[in-house]
Amino acid sequence: MTTEAEIIARIHRRLGSAGGRFVRLGIGDDAAILRPSRGAELLVTCDPFLEGVHFLREKHRADVVGYKALARATSDIAAMGGVPRCFLLGLALPETHAGKWLDGFLAGMRRAARRFGMVLAGGDTSKHRQILVQITVLGEIAAGKAILRSGARLGDLIYVSGRLGEAQLGLEVILRGRDGKRGWRGLLRKHLHPEPRLALGQWLAAKRLASAMIDVSDGLSTDLGHVCEASGAGARVFSEKIPQVRVPEDLRRRGVDPQKLALDGGEDYELLFTVPRRMARRLPTSYRGVLLTAIGEITRGGEIVLIERDGRVAALRPHGWDPFRAV
Amino acid sequence: MTTEAEIIARIHRRLGSAGGRFVRLGIGDDAAILRPSRGAELLVTCDPFLEGVHFLREKHRADVVGYKALARATSDIAAMGGVPRCFLLGLALPETHAGKWLDGFLAGMRRAARRFGMVLAGGDTSKHRQILVQITVLGEIAAGKAILRSGARLGDLIYVSGRLGEAQLGLEVILRGRDGKRGWRGLLRKHLHPEPRLALGQWLAAKRLASAMIDVSDGLSTDLGHVCEASGAGARVFSEKIPQVRVPEDLRRRGVDPQKLALDGGEDYELLFTVPRRMARRLPTSYRGVLLTAIGEITRGGEIVLIERDGRVAALRPHGWDPFRAV
Repeated sequence: MTTEAEIIARIHRRLGSAGGRFVRLGIGDDAAILRPSRGAELLVTCDPFLEGVHFLREKHRADVVGYKALARATSDIAAMGGVPRCFLLGLALPETHAGKWLDGFLAGMRRAARRFGMVLAGGDTSKHRQILVQITVLGEIAAGKAILRSGARLGDLIYVSGRLGEAQLGLEVILRGRDGKRGWRGLLRKHLHPEPRLALGQWLAAKRLASAMIDVSDGLSTDLGHVCEASGAGARVFSEKIPQVRVPEDLRRRGVDPQKLALDGGEDYELLFTVPRRMARRLPTSYRGVLLTAIGEITRGGEIVLIERDGRVAALRPHGWDPFRAV
Repeated sequence: MTTEAEIIARIHRRLGSAGGRFVRLGIGDDAAILRPSRGAELLVTCDPFLEGVHFLREKHRADVVGYKALARATSDIAAMGGVPRCFLLGLALPETHAGKWLDGFLAGMRRAARRFGMVLAGGDTSKHRQILVQITVLGEIAAGKAILRSGARLGDLIYVSGRLGEAQLGLEVILRGRDGKRGWRGLLRKHLHPEPRLALGQWLAAKRLASAMIDVSDGLSTDLGHVCEASGAGARVFSEKIPQVRVPEDLRRRGVDPQKLALDGGEDYELLFTVPRRMARRLPTSYRGVLLTAIGEITRGGEIVLIERDGRVAALRPHGWDPFRAV
């Protein structure tokens, strides 16, 4: 029979609890003790990753669950322009999953932690019929440099990083049972191993290039809505400018529409940000290999419209992921 | 149909997101922005509160769930001697519970937040068949003043606050369906509305009176084990000195044993701490109305023993709450 102490020991062994400058005391006490850097503000965010809601036990390998749980939470720090420092892991799981599955999960999480430069600082475990993960991420940023959702102003250009809809395409491939198809592994990459745009976010914050920012976690149509609402503004987006996922012909014929994926697909974890027009010339077409594309501009009023190739104008309604709408 | 935005708006309305000195930016962006106080260290802890594991939907009212979820997480800050500042709320619930139940939950949580001097700084919501709560609490303490589990030394006296076993007695009363019995409401208080010992913890830390500290969340036999293990020490506890819960005769006859409740009962959220012998005379018998009792002393080696009234000596094994042992 597994005890909580054994599980915590396993987590400690696999994920470590490196001290370091920021984390003065990691897992093993009632609370972690952190030492914020002088002159920095602290960023903190939490994100659930629940079986049956955010992942499927039968479709997603343990290491993918571990990697992705941490990556998506860390993306919120990227969206502020911050540097992630450490995280807490809240984990509930069935006893059947406290051995090999847990090891795989921790291996994936360790890979993400190393990649993003974070250490485990604490957490909690429980027994539950389902696998429930809750991640709290703490990061830092120089005081006053964080990029909020609320800073978009009339005339600012709207940018996105990368291509939109890739993560949703990966999910479609899995749900259609096509993930074994030869040559299609690559289509799953963004769904299984999303990459928080940390370097890009930090660069935009340090150079004060972006006036507002959010990560595309729920889908462009929903997340642009969040920026506009917080900024008290509207937006005009040009359909043909949106860098869309490339969808294999086979799937297009079966009704998988790249534009719909790009507008409403969630989990890309790309950055959506606005740039004052006078700064736009300082923005390269890509940053460290990640495409940067202007897709529209901020307008007066609260309306968000999509301008189609043929000039038609339609309201862009939030049809991205909503945990309370999804079935 | 409820949307995530509606739920977040409801949380915002009921719990507010007061700014204040510590929380520069609360809920509504990708991450919260906090401003740590100069010279302070940051304390952070997370705690799940899951239906079917930590509470029962049919037995615990919504406001109790809200209050208790925050109280128990905050107790970890008390156990370090810190001052709680803000919290993040991770909440998953069925759509049926997104209205009246949610309001009750938020009312209980608001009461706890005000009582403990905290504000909501962020969080996340999802839809789930079960009610799943995850709380992250952030607090502060003057650098170097936190009281760890690992500081107990040979000869230190072991103290507890309050009476042990009261929370477990309340749970027994509920599980036996006796919570409607006249005059027995008071027996439920500690189970339903535990009180993190914040003032006591802060006083012990500020005066540097305690060498080690933990909160009694899993039960004395388990939590004293954590202190001894972290400190590389053993302990000798005197049975007759333990301030035990008072159990009604009616329940005693039915086998509810006060000593067992005091040793193994969880959720009291009292403080268990060690005090160097030379400091013990500075400790009053109560602090702000909370009883302080010396129950034993720290010994060499890893063994923890209980000395009974008649002089018999028995090993005190961890029989407190373990989420992976409980059924």
